[in-house]
Amino acid sequence: MRDCIDIHTHVVPESFPPYAGRNANVPWPSMAEAQACHKHVMISGKVYRTVADGCWSVPRRIEEMGAMGVGRQAISPMPELLSYWLPLDDARTMIRYLNDQIAAMIEQAPEHFVGLGAVPLQDDDAALKELHYVLKDLKFQGVEIASHVNGTSIGDARFEPFFAECERLGAAIFVHALRPAGQDRIVGPFPEQAVCFPGDIALACASMITGGIAARHPKLRIAFSHGGGGMAILLPRLVHAWKMFPKAKASLPESPEIAARRFYYDELVFEPRAIRFLLETFGENQICLGTDYPFAMGDLAPMKTLEKAGLDREMLKRIAFKNARRFLGLPAASR
Amino acid sequence: MRDCIDIHTHVVPESFPPYAGRNANVPWPSMAEAQACHKHVMISGKVYRTVADGCWSVPRRIEEMGAMGVGRQAISPMPELLSYWLPLDDARTMIRYLNDQIAAMIEQAPEHFVGLGAVPLQDDDAALKELHYVLKDLKFQGVEIASHVNGTSIGDARFEPFFAECERLGAAIFVHALRPAGQDRIVGPFPEQAVCFPGDIALACASMITGGIAARHPKLRIAFSHGGGGMAILLPRLVHAWKMFPKAKASLPESPEIAARRFYYDELVFEPRAIRFLLETFGENQICLGTDYPFAMGDLAPMKTLEKAGLDREMLKRIAFKNARRFLGLPAASR
Repeated sequence: MRDCIDIHTHVVPESFPPYAGRNANVPWPSMAEAQACHKHVMISGKVYRTVADGCWSVPRRIEEMGAMGVGRQAISPMPELLSYWLPLDDARTMIRYLNDQIAAMIEQAPEHFVGLGAVPLQDDDAALKELHYVLKDLKFQGVEIASHVNGTSIGDARFEPFFAECERLGAAIFVHALRPAGQDRIVGPFPEQAVCFPGDIALACASMITGGIAARHPKLRIAFSHGGGGMAILLPRLVHAWKMFPKAKASLPESPEIAARRFYYDELVFEPRAIRFLLETFGENQICLGTDYPFAMGDLAPMKTLEKAGLDREMLKRIAFKNARRFLGLPAASR
Repeated sequence: MRDCIDIHTHVVPESFPPYAGRNANVPWPSMAEAQACHKHVMISGKVYRTVADGCWSVPRRIEEMGAMGVGRQAISPMPELLSYWLPLDDARTMIRYLNDQIAAMIEQAPEHFVGLGAVPLQDDDAALKELHYVLKDLKFQGVEIASHVNGTSIGDARFEPFFAECERLGAAIFVHALRPAGQDRIVGPFPEQAVCFPGDIALACASMITGGIAARHPKLRIAFSHGGGGMAILLPRLVHAWKMFPKAKASLPESPEIAARRFYYDELVFEPRAIRFLLETFGENQICLGTDYPFAMGDLAPMKTLEKAGLDREMLKRIAFKNARRFLGLPAASR
């Protein structure tokens, strides 16, 4: 249990600095009081989400990690804070603030946390600068990025310099669904993150393969949220298309399956049968514990879910921490 | 083999009548000569797709069914012909033409084909009229509909009268991905049907559950294309959301899993492990043979795929024809 590493957990700071930029109508977040131990994240005058103090309180977080059986968390911003849609100067301010807040949490309990920072991916140079800052100054293990940047999939050629630098520096990249494709197709009072995140992260994962970035950067350490969503079902279809369409085949030197089995995925799919399917599809060295702590769509009893999957002891160890150590670039015997 | 029923196959007529409507700039399809045994489907002056003569030739179709080990096909229009985006008068003309063409193919070989017709779902009354026509006049088993109608998911309340009538009349409904969500997220030369259909059909399937139509019409016989796409991965997440969000729970009297396990799905996921996962997730009475014949993204050796899944003889029979008979409303000993 001490060894278990959760690669998918989020941070919301307890407060944000007031907006001090020079742009108009910026959806700059703020925090407002809510019920005990909770705050509202306010964006553009509305409650975006009401969050619990595990988002920012290190003691609360460690207490809850104990209950969950998790020894260490990779902590990354709540995705809606990634700020790709803000004017660049505002995004840089917000993202620097988030990264420093994450660093401050790690400093309080370095044995419990590793950092996955944010970068302003809407601008190549600014993203590279912040990447260097979080890796070199803050000593994070890597970054969290979204499935797309304002509608452009992360597999687009414009992001290749960023991924090339991540590969060169050995940064872990955790890709999270955000503002998902198909939101306008939801019917009924189910939230977008419930209905659309699995399809959204699958599109991001597919784009990294079909655009060729994954093949050109085979040493990239990249993990996809929510088990890669529909990717486990989509993958054989991509392989079939690669074989059937000459243009697809000519564009890609390796079967989509090869890259997909180099990627990492969290196991946040809630059902033991689905976890086993991820293992079969992507391989037993690629699936990592990931809970979405502390949000409502999280699995806050992950060890129970894994137990139900009926895995042998070695497989459990791989999912619980061995694969995460490799993904995050942590030493095998780090404790 | 004689018994095997393929629920997912498409028809394109050998020709279309010239446009005779009164609207301007209607994307009315036509056929143009291509290489031997092929024609181009032309839409708005461009080749939409080049298709083989199995699309319209009954002898060719029967020959290829023999090679595939399929005894009977449910035949439905190529989805891009469903015409939801045409002016209603034009859509009615096109759809009536399609339905009559399908009826003519069935007449040539009634032991080999059953019909799944089209309906102009952009208009409630017109859709109901055509539903009655295909069921009563043409004796089809049901209809094919798309995952959404011009961006509105099929689970939207506006389509409930249509589904209520399908339930009342015992019509089988085959739902097919079309003009999929997330098309703008594709990177590289992979076609939309390869990358985006699985996510698109999952959204349609989810909408039928989260909007409540499935719960209110439990006798509906409805099947989803491409194995339901990402639905098998999404489903446990919907169940979790239903438990966690009071509004979701209040809106739905049954767990999303209950409806999802009443639905039917084809097994067009290409990998034996994925077929087994569909069986585990949706139940062994819900998965039907479906190939997407005669298109490039089809599985034209479906019995081989099923063989590799290592299913016992009874399970094979269920997938090969028993479940399809129930979905299509065919008598158990129809031959």
